[in-house]
Amino acid sequence: MRPSSRTASQIRPVSITRNYTIHAEGSVLIEFGNTKVLCNASVNEGVPRFMKGQGKGWITAEYSMLPRATHTRSDREAARGKQGGRTLEIQRLIARSLRAAVDLKMLGENTIVVDCDVIQADGGTRTASITGACVALVDALSHMRTKGIIKNNPLKCMIAAISVGIFRGTPIADLEYLEDSEAETDMNVIMTDTGKLIEVQGTAEGEAFSFDELNEMLGLAKTGINELFDIQRTALS
Amino acid sequence: MRPSSRTASQIRPVSITRNYTIHAEGSVLIEFGNTKVLCNASVNEGVPRFMKGQGKGWITAEYSMLPRATHTRSDREAARGKQGGRTLEIQRLIARSLRAAVDLKMLGENTIVVDCDVIQADGGTRTASITGACVALVDALSHMRTKGIIKNNPLKCMIAAISVGIFRGTPIADLEYLEDSEAETDMNVIMTDTGKLIEVQGTAEGEAFSFDELNEMLGLAKTGINELFDIQRTALS
Amino acid sequence: MRPSSRTASQIRPVSITRNYTIHAEGSVLIEFGNTKVLCNASVNEGVPRFMKGQGKGWITAEYSMLPRATHTRSDREAARGKQGGRTLEIQRLIARSLRAAVDLKMLGENTIVVDCDVIQADGGTRTASITGACVALVDALSHMRTKGIIKNNPLKCMIAAISVGIFRGTPIADLEYLEDSEAETDMNVIMTDTGKLIEVQGTAEGEAFSFDELNEMLGLAKTGINELFDIQRTALS
Amino acid sequence: MRPSSRTASQIRPVSITRNYTIHAEGSVLIEFGNTKVLCNASVNEGVPRFMKGQGKGWITAEYSMLPRATHTRSDREAARGKQGGRTLEIQRLIARSLRAAVDLKMLGENTIVVDCDVIQADGGTRTASITGACVALVDALSHMRTKGIIKNNPLKCMIAAISVGIFRGTPIADLEYLEDSEAETDMNVIMTDTGKLIEVQGTAEGEAFSFDELNEMLGLAKTGINELFDIQRTALS
Amino acid sequence: MRPSSRTASQIRPVSITRNYTIHAEGSVLIEFGNTKVLCNASVNEGVPRFMKGQGKGWITAEYSMLPRATHTRSDREAARGKQGGRTLEIQRLIARSLRAAVDLKMLGENTIVVDCDVIQADGGTRTASITGACVALVDALSHMRTKGIIKNNPLKCMIAAISVGIFRGTPIADLEYLEDSEAETDMNVIMTDTGKLIEVQGTAEGEAFSFDELNEMLGLAKTGINELFDIQRTALS
Amino acid sequence: MRPSSRTASQIRPVSITRNYTIHAEGSVLIEFGNTKVLCNASVNEGVPRFMKGQGKGWITAEYSMLPRATHTRSDREAARGKQGGRTLEIQRLIARSLRAAVDLKMLGENTIVVDCDVIQADGGTRTASITGACVALVDALSHMRTKGIIKNNPLKCMIAAISVGIFRGTPIADLEYLEDSEAETDMNVIMTDTGKLIEVQGTAEGEAFSFDELNEMLGLAKTGINELFDIQRTALS
Repeated sequence: MRPSSRTASQIRPVSITRNYTIHAEGSVLIEFGNTKVLCNASVNEGVPRFMKGQGKGWITAEYSMLPRATHTRSDREAARGKQGGRTLEIQRLIARSLRAAVDLKMLGENTIVVDCDVIQADGGTRTASITGACVALVDALSHMRTKGIIKNNPLKCMIAAISVGIFRGTPIADLEYLEDSEAETDMNVIMTDTGKLIEVQGTAEGEAFSFDELNEMLGLAKTGINELFDIQRTALS
Repeated sequence: MRPSSRTASQIRPVSITRNYTIHAEGSVLIEFGNTKVLCNASVNEGVPRFMKGQGKGWITAEYSMLPRATHTRSDREAARGKQGGRTLEIQRLIARSLRAAVDLKMLGENTIVVDCDVIQADGGTRTASITGACVALVDALSHMRTKGIIKNNPLKCMIAAISVGIFRGTPIADLEYLEDSEAETDMNVIMTDTGKLIEVQGTAEGEAFSFDELNEMLGLAKTGINELFDIQRTALS
Repeated sequence: MRPSSRTASQIRPVSITRNYTIHAEGSVLIEFGNTKVLCNASVNEGVPRFMKGQGKGWITAEYSMLPRATHTRSDREAARGKQGGRTLEIQRLIARSLRAAVDLKMLGENTIVVDCDVIQADGGTRTASITGACVALVDALSHMRTKGIIKNNPLKCMIAAISVGIFRGTPIADLEYLEDSEAETDMNVIMTDTGKLIEVQGTAEGEAFSFDELNEMLGLAKTGINELFDIQRTALS
Repeated sequence: MRPSSRTASQIRPVSITRNYTIHAEGSVLIEFGNTKVLCNASVNEGVPRFMKGQGKGWITAEYSMLPRATHTRSDREAARGKQGGRTLEIQRLIARSLRAAVDLKMLGENTIVVDCDVIQADGGTRTASITGACVALVDALSHMRTKGIIKNNPLKCMIAAISVGIFRGTPIADLEYLEDSEAETDMNVIMTDTGKLIEVQGTAEGEAFSFDELNEMLGLAKTGINELFDIQRTALS
Repeated sequence: MRPSSRTASQIRPVSITRNYTIHAEGSVLIEFGNTKVLCNASVNEGVPRFMKGQGKGWITAEYSMLPRATHTRSDREAARGKQGGRTLEIQRLIARSLRAAVDLKMLGENTIVVDCDVIQADGGTRTASITGACVALVDALSHMRTKGIIKNNPLKCMIAAISVGIFRGTPIADLEYLEDSEAETDMNVIMTDTGKLIEVQGTAEGEAFSFDELNEMLGLAKTGINELFDIQRTALS
Repeated sequence: MRPSSRTASQIRPVSITRNYTIHAEGSVLIEFGNTKVLCNASVNEGVPRFMKGQGKGWITAEYSMLPRATHTRSDREAARGKQGGRTLEIQRLIARSLRAAVDLKMLGENTIVVDCDVIQADGGTRTASITGACVALVDALSHMRTKGIIKNNPLKCMIAAISVGIFRGTPIADLEYLEDSEAETDMNVIMTDTGKLIEVQGTAEGEAFSFDELNEMLGLAKTGINELFDIQRTALS
C-alpha cells in the first residue's frame, strides 16, 4: 500500500492553468497533487553567442524552488551565490527535452527561455516542470506566430514526463515526497506523444534494480504519460 | 488624470490570502492590483551567531522577483551568482520593519525568516511585501504559541506600507508600474497601526521636491495605510 | 545632553580639502569631525551599455570603508568577494543624489565615477560622502570644460546631506558614532541649495516616530545643510 | 560502419594501471582507448556535517577535465570561478554509483573522496571514471584494513559503466568522440557485477528513441560491462 | 638621466606619520615621494584555525589600492568580486616579511592584521607598504605591552624595503612610476637592520639581466634601505 | 647530509617526454624526481583585448595541482570557486618567464596558453613547470611554422628554472619536499641559455640570509640550470 493510498499505476490529480501571469508569452501553473510549478516561457530576439549565424533558434530553461516550497526551508540559491548541482542538472534536463520537441531551424534566430519556479513541492517537481513547460512553450510559439515572428509551428510533438520508482519492492508511478524519499529506485521518463523516449534516468538510491524491474517501471511510465498527454490536450483546446 | 483612472488618493484593490502554501508556518499571497507577492514565514530554532546568548530572537527577510514577474525577463539572481543592490536594499527594509513590530525578547532564541517572492510585478512590490509579510508573521507567531514555543504574543503592533509619489506634478497614492516609471518623486512609507512612522524613504527621481509636497505625500500615505490596516484585520479575523 | 557636548542643532566642524590627491579630476577630503572621507571623481569617455546612443552622460559612485576605519576591524569586502548590502545601498544613494544635481544631457556621452573611501569613521559617513562628492564633482566638471570635453556647466545646483535623529527623546543634528548607535530614529536628508529635497530616509531603529518628530528632524536638517552649503561655497571660492 | 572501424558491440582496448601516483591511498590510471582518466581515492577521517553522529561513512567524488584534454582548449573551471553543470552532474553520478557499491555502516565515520581527472578525452570519460574509480576504491579500502581503520571489507559488489548509443540508426557500444558527437541517442549504463543496474541515463540528442532501441542498447551495455568486470578483476589480481 | 632628476642611488624624500588614524593600534602614513600608503595594524585575540593550539601568534596583511590612486581609474576589487593576482602576491609578501621580523611565540595566541591601503601611487607601493607596516607593527606591539597582552617585545629586528632596477641600461634605486614602467629589470629587496636579506625578487621585464647587474642592484638596495632604517628610527624616537 | 642523500649541488634525475597527450600543439610531461608536471601548450588565434591592434602576440599560463598530487588531499580550486594566491603567483611567474624568451612581434596576433598541471608533487613544481613549459612552447612554435601561421621562429633563447635553498645551514640545489619544508631560505632562479637571469626570487622562511649565502645559492642555480639546458636539448633533438 502506498502512503498516498493510490494504486501502483495511479497518478495524482493534475491541473494545468494557462495564462497564470500576465507578462510572459506562455505562462502555465501546473499541479501534480500538492506539487505546484509556475512555468513561464519568455520569447527573446537573438540567440546565445555559440549559436550565432546558424539561422537556428535556441531553447533554454531555468529551474528553482522557492525557499519554503519544501517541508523545511532551504537556503535561497541567489543568497548562497550559486546554483546547486541538483538545480543545474534539472534545468539542463528540462531544456534538452524541450529542444527535442522543436525544429530549431523553424524557430529562426530567437530564444525561448522557460522558467520553472516551484511554488510548492511534494515530489515530482522535475516531471511537473517538463509537462507544464511544454504547454507554456506551445503558448509562446502561438504568440510568435500571431506577432509574425515565425510563420509555421516549429513544434514536432508534445512531450510529458513522469517519475516512477520501486517502493517497498513494488514499482509505482508518480511518486509524492513521502514515497520518493523512501523509494529504492527512482526513475524519470520523458516521452513524446508519438510514443518515443526522450530521456530515461533511472537511479538506484539504495538497492540496485533488475532488468525486469526496469521494464515494469517503463510500462508504468508509458501509461502515466499518456494520461498527461490527454490533460495537456484538454488544457490547450 | 492617472493612467490607472484612480483618484489621487485611491489605492488599488488589495487581497490577502492566508495559508496559500502548505509547508510554511505563515503563508500569505498578497495582491495590490496586478502586483502579487507570496510571503512565507518560516520558524527556525536558534539565532544567527551575532545574536547568540542574548536570550532574544531575530527576524530576517529575503526578497526576490521571479525572472518573468516583469514586462521583460530579468536575469535570475541565482544564475548571475549574486543578489543585486536593489534586492538587498528591499530585503533589509522588510526585515528592519518587521523587527520594529516585534518584542524580540519575547520571541526567545528563535528566528523567523520571511521570504517575499514576487510572482507578478506592477509597481509597489516592496510595500505589498511588507504589508503581506506582517500577516504571515502573525500566523507564524500563532503557530509558535500553539506549539508552545512561546507563551505570549510578541507582536507590539501591526505594520503596513504604501508608496506615494508625485506624478505629473500631483501627489498620488499606491503607484502602479506605469505611474511609478514616470513619477518625479517616489516615496515609501511604513507605519504602525498606532499611528507612528517606521520608515520614510522619499527619492527625487527627476525633480527635487518641496517640503510642502513631502507633507502632502505623507498625508496620502497615512490615509492609504489606514485602509490597509482594515484589510489586514479582516483577513486575520 | 549629547555625548558630544554639542547643542541639538550644532553640527561638527567640517573641513573640505580640494586636490587632496594628484591623479583624480576632482579629489576632495571631507571631514565631519572625526569622520574623514576621500572623494575622488574620475572622468571617463563613454557611458555604460544601457545608456548608449541617448546622447546623455552618466554619473555613478562607489563607496567603501577601509577595514580599520572603524573601532574594530571589519572584513575587507574585496577579500570576502562581495560588497555588502549596506555598501551597495549607500553607493546607490550617492550616485542617485549626484545625478539629480546634473543635467545629464549637457554632460555628453561621458561618465563620472565618484569613489568615496572612508579613511576614518565616526558616524555620518554617507552624508559626508555626498557633501564631499558634490565638491569633487564640481572640480571634475571644471576639468572637463578646461579640456574642452564639454562647453557649459551641467550642474543644476549644489547638493549636501546631513543626518538627524532622535537621541534619548530629543531630535539632534549630525550624529556621531556614539549618538548614532544609541539613537531611536536615524534620518538622512539630502537637499539642493535651491531649498528642495533630493532624498529623505528616516528609519525607526527601536521606537517608531511621530509626524511631529519627523517635522522637527526635517527642520534641523534644513538648518544644518544650509551651513554645509556655506562651507562648500567657501571651499570652492 | 563506425568511424572507429569497430563492430557495434566491440569496446575499445581498456587498460588499468594501479598505484599510478604515490600519495593517494588508491591511484588508478584507466584508459578506454584514447580516453585517459586518473582516479585518486583519498581516505579522510570524519564525515561531512550532515552525516555526523550516524556511525556511517561517506563517499564523494570530484571530476574535472584538464583544459587541454580536449581537441580545443576549454576554460579552466578554477579560473572561471565555478564548476559547470556538466561537471557537477558527472561527479554526482560517480559518487552516487560508488556509494551504491559500499556498505556505508561498515566504513565507520570516514570519508573517501575519489578525484577523477581527465588527462585526455576521447568520449566516455564518465564511464571510464566510474570503472576506474571502483578499482581505486578497492585499493583505498584495502589500505584502510591494512592500517586497521576498518576490520572488514565494506564493498558489496564491483561496479562498472559503459556508454551505448544510436549512431546512424544502429545501436553501438563504447562511443568515442567522433561517434558520440554525431549520435542520435546517448546512454550511460552502470551495473553491478551481480547483474543489476545502478543507473541508466539515456538521452535523445536529436531523435527520440523507441522502446526497442532502448532494449538493444541495454543488451549491448550488459555485454560490454561484463568485459569490463573481467579487466577489473585481472587488474586487481 | 632619470626622469626624476635624481642620481642613480638617490631615494625619494620619505615621510612617516604615526597615529594617522585614531582607531588602529598602529596607524602609519608613509610617503615615498608621491606614493602614499596608509598602514593600519589591528590587534585581534586568537589565531586562524590552522595555527590553533600551538601557543604562537600570527601576522597577516592585506593590500589594496584605492581605485583612483593611479593615473587612470582601476576597477574596485570589491566590486569585481575578487582580489587580483598582483594584490594577493603583494599582501603575501608583506605578511611573510613582517613574520620574519617577529618571534611568533612571544606574541602568544594573538593575530596582528596589517592593512596597507594605497591612497596615491607613484611606483614602489609594495616597498613603501613594508617599510611603513613595520613601524605600524612596532606601535601595535607597544600597545599590546601597555595593555598587558604580552610581556616582552617580540620584535627581532626592523625591516625595510626598496625597489631597484635597470633603467636605460643603468641600475637605479627607488623607481617612481615613469621609471618603473620603462625599466628593463625591476627588483624588490627587503632587509633587516641586522644587514641580512628577507626577500629578493628580481624580474626581467624586457631584457634578461646579468649577474653583475644583479650585484650592482643589490648594492644600491643596501644603501637605500639603510637610509630607510634611519628614517624609521627617527619616526619612532 | 640531505634527506635525499644527494650532494649539495646534485639535482634529481630529470626526464622530459614530448607529445605526452595527443590534442595539444605542444605536450610535455616533465619529471624532476617524483615531481611530475604535464605542460600543454595551446595555440589560439587572436590576443586578449588589452593587446589588440598592436600586431603582437601573447603568452599566458595556468598552473594547478591535482587535489591528490600532494601527501594529503588539498581542496580543488574549481570547487572552492577561486584560485589561491600561491596558484596565481606561480602562473604569473611562468607566463612572465616564457614571454621573456619570445619575440612577441614575430608571434603575430596569436596567443599561446601553457597549462601546467601537477600530476604528482615532491617539491620544485614551479621550476619543473617552467623548464617543461619551455619545451612545450618550442613544439607549439614548430607547429605554428608547419601550419604556416608564422614564418620564422620567435624564440630568442631557451629558459629553465631551478630551486635552491639553505637547508640546515648549507646551500643546496633542487630541493625536494622534505628539504623544502624544512629549509631556512628558499630561492627560485630562472635563467636563459645565454647565461642571463630572468627571475630571482629568494625568500627567508625562518632565518634572514646573508649576501654571501645569496651568492652561493646563485652559483648552485647556475650549475643546475646548465644541466637542465642539456636535458632540454637532448629531448628536443
